[in-house]
Amino acid sequence: MPNPIEEFVQRSEARFLDELKSFLRIPSISTLPEHKGDIDRAAAFVAGQLQSVGMEHVEIIPTGKHPLVYGDWLHAPGKPAVLCYGHYDVQPPDPLELWQTPPFEPTLRDGNLYARGSADDKGQMHMHIKAIETLRAVHGTLPVNVKFLIEGEEEVGGASIAKYVPLNKEKLKADVALVSDTALYAEGIPTLCIGLRGLVYTEVECTGPARDLHSGLYGGAAPNAVFALIEMLSKTKSADGVIQLPGLYNDVRRPAQAELDSWKSLPFSEKEFLEKEVGSTELTGEPGYSVLERTWARPTLEVHGIGGGFTGAGAKTVIPAKATAKLSIRLVPDQDPDKVIASLRDFIRTHTPAGCKMELRVLSAGPAIVVNPDHPAIRVAARTFSQMLGRPTVFTRSGGSIPIVGDFAKHLGIPTVLMGFGLPDDGLHSPNEKYNLRNYYVGIMTIAHFLEQYGA
Amino acid sequence: MPNPIEEFVQRSEARFLDELKSFLRIPSISTLPEHKGDIDRAAAFVAGQLQSVGMEHVEIIPTGKHPLVYGDWLHAPGKPAVLCYGHYDVQPPDPLELWQTPPFEPTLRDGNLYARGSADDKGQMHMHIKAIETLRAVHGTLPVNVKFLIEGEEEVGGASIAKYVPLNKEKLKADVALVSDTALYAEGIPTLCIGLRGLVYTEVECTGPARDLHSGLYGGAAPNAVFALIEMLSKTKSADGVIQLPGLYNDVRRPAQAELDSWKSLPFSEKEFLEKEVGSTELTGEPGYSVLERTWARPTLEVHGIGGGFTGAGAKTVIPAKATAKLSIRLVPDQDPDKVIASLRDFIRTHTPAGCKMELRVLSAGPAIVVNPDHPAIRVAARTFSQMLGRPTVFTRSGGSIPIVGDFAKHLGIPTVLMGFGLPDDGLHSPNEKYNLRNYYVGIMTIAHFLEQYGA
Repeated sequence: MPNPIEEFVQRSEARFLDELKSFLRIPSISTLPEHKGDIDRAAAFVAGQLQSVGMEHVEIIPTGKHPLVYGDWLHAPGKPAVLCYGHYDVQPPDPLELWQTPPFEPTLRDGNLYARGSADDKGQMHMHIKAIETLRAVHGTLPVNVKFLIEGEEEVGGASIAKYVPLNKEKLKADVALVSDTALYAEGIPTLCIGLRGLVYTEVECTGPARDLHSGLYGGAAPNAVFALIEMLSKTKSADGVIQLPGLYNDVRRPAQAELDSWKSLPFSEKEFLEKEVGSTELTGEPGYSVLERTWARPTLEVHGIGGGFTGAGAKTVIPAKATAKLSIRLVPDQDPDKVIASLRDFIRTHTPAGCKMELRVLSAGPAIVVNPDHPAIRVAARTFSQMLGRPTVFTRSGGSIPIVGDFAKHLGIPTVLMGFGLPDDGLHSPNEKYNLRNYYVGIMTIAHFLEQYGA
Repeated sequence: MPNPIEEFVQRSEARFLDELKSFLRIPSISTLPEHKGDIDRAAAFVAGQLQSVGMEHVEIIPTGKHPLVYGDWLHAPGKPAVLCYGHYDVQPPDPLELWQTPPFEPTLRDGNLYARGSADDKGQMHMHIKAIETLRAVHGTLPVNVKFLIEGEEEVGGASIAKYVPLNKEKLKADVALVSDTALYAEGIPTLCIGLRGLVYTEVECTGPARDLHSGLYGGAAPNAVFALIEMLSKTKSADGVIQLPGLYNDVRRPAQAELDSWKSLPFSEKEFLEKEVGSTELTGEPGYSVLERTWARPTLEVHGIGGGFTGAGAKTVIPAKATAKLSIRLVPDQDPDKVIASLRDFIRTHTPAGCKMELRVLSAGPAIVVNPDHPAIRVAARTFSQMLGRPTVFTRSGGSIPIVGDFAKHLGIPTVLMGFGLPDDGLHSPNEKYNLRNYYVGIMTIAHFLEQYGA
């Protein structure tokens, strides 16, 4: 027999879906200046939704770029406060020709809602708002204090919210943050992500000769900026992926045995991962570690791109004067980004070939995050999740980074419940992004139950 | 007291210069389709010039791209035949804003004629025609048989002439070829280039995962095409520039001690080379060899360009699926291009990292050229040159490659006299290209004397 929360959500399904569709029709692409008007419309839409579910002090906060949206409801004295975060901006839809239906005309197929932003993050963020509406409809009040902080720059680096949080600690004060921008480990498995890798992202520029030289006349005597960069970069990792920066592994904390054991119980097929996801002939990486451990709990170094010299069609016999690469290192607990940057700087200095110069520019740096699974909010979230999906909640990590989670920890001193309802194959940032409609409704119910039980 | 050749040239200076200027005003840029009309005008100009100095069978030969111009004079029975080669096409003038005077409005400053093509190669090719005119004016006939073959694709790879030569061996039959498309070692030093390095130019494409992957989710387990390419390329050379391809040095023929000794006597300052030409802090390359030996007589390997992954502004955390590099190897006598390509192919196969594939595409391949300094034509050229400039002729090599010289050797079985009157600072392919006007006139005289003495 359904309880009032389930009943209300089921009764409201058509309306919730209509509202979500309206939200998804706004092409709020944060990286394209020509969509600035859509960004503002999306922010206004969010503000309107917050108001409609009883949030107070709703404001659209101008920033240097795209506005933040804030709203709160603080009438549950003695109860904890939950800071709900999400983002209303989306990735560009290119390549358009690969979409089966238009990216900004949400379309239902086989129980999935196809649209840019359906899973990342409009659909998931919308669950928070609808959970609040549900609780108020059922109880006439809310079981906890609630604050919403929604941004429009998540897909372009999130600079404005990163500035806003440390300047508004009192306003944003809460006991826990709630973020729905992740996925279930697999369909039907209640999943709480309790670890995110940190990231140091850099650009290395190498300069050799003063200008491009003719390789016939100078080849064999003049330094080559592309080759020098290649030589240095090739030494950053051993053939099996062990990072060669001195001291890099010194502070790496290994996950507890219990956590490692729980990962082993997750359904994971290396063969499927290799064939369906990676699409290669072989997996790579540090020997002695499972794939999950390598991507979740080991530091890794990647070169994301490199460019220099002549790359057009045909032949040009040039010795390049300049070359650039993007290089990042993913961090795990307890690595210190500043120490890692210093080690990288030293490494580059040591391995710069004769006749060349290297310049390192740090574009961003943030530490890894781990959330204590014994924190009351996490314990309640795990229990609620289990009850809703009918099987034990698994604790996972993600190899990726969500910088705002680090900012909440650092400036507000609070952990984040990462309770996402996406699926691994949702196609975030890709054509035909989708969100499972059942997960959307179950998500609303689960979040409502979580807030109810957390307040109890 | 000047002899008749000098007298005629001096008397004709103003007219010769006027004709050359008309030639230089035609923007015959071979790489830009919008200049096709100028290409045709330049070819017609050359044909007209050949006719005006008494060449017979003058024809403009259509090709798949830009026409060849041919003309001959074969009325010196029992005398050798000389095949004069040059090119009427030029490089684009960009960047235009760096030119002090317009590139296609030839301008005289400080004894230099500034214009695109003045040295490379219109001015130098024009010397051949004016030398023929001078000889006929002075003697009423020519001391040797002469054939002209002038192309319009030298700056874009020379595909048409490369096809034409092997199909017209009888027509082009000669005892020696004469090319003026090189420079004096330094002002006032009579210079004959008797060695050119060969070139194997390739493109390597590396593919890793099926598509670009998120480095947070896959970093540490998925192959990275950029890094794999970097790893392979970094192993092609040791830190001091020794090429690591197995067997690469097996067939390398060291220059004779006399030739090496003569190089030591050339004015060469490593410091000036480094500071004024290379513009770096240090020279690189194989220990134990002089800079001239490294660039003229040692095989070298260069990466001319590399591209892959994300290279835009800012950060994108992608594991690239694809990366490409341009790689070439300069060859010296007696290296066989096919053996070198086979060795490179093996090397790449051996050093392709797990999970990636590499494809090697050979864009061009030609062996090194050495001309025997004891060949009669070279001996005469050296003697004439010495007499004209009043000091001994030096024999140099060039680290670059002139493919047509290889084609003449291979298909016609003849050596080439590389008698150029440019200077190292002429700025070929650069803004403010110039040609020293005195060298233009001296060049005409020297070539006339060379033909005269070669026929004697």
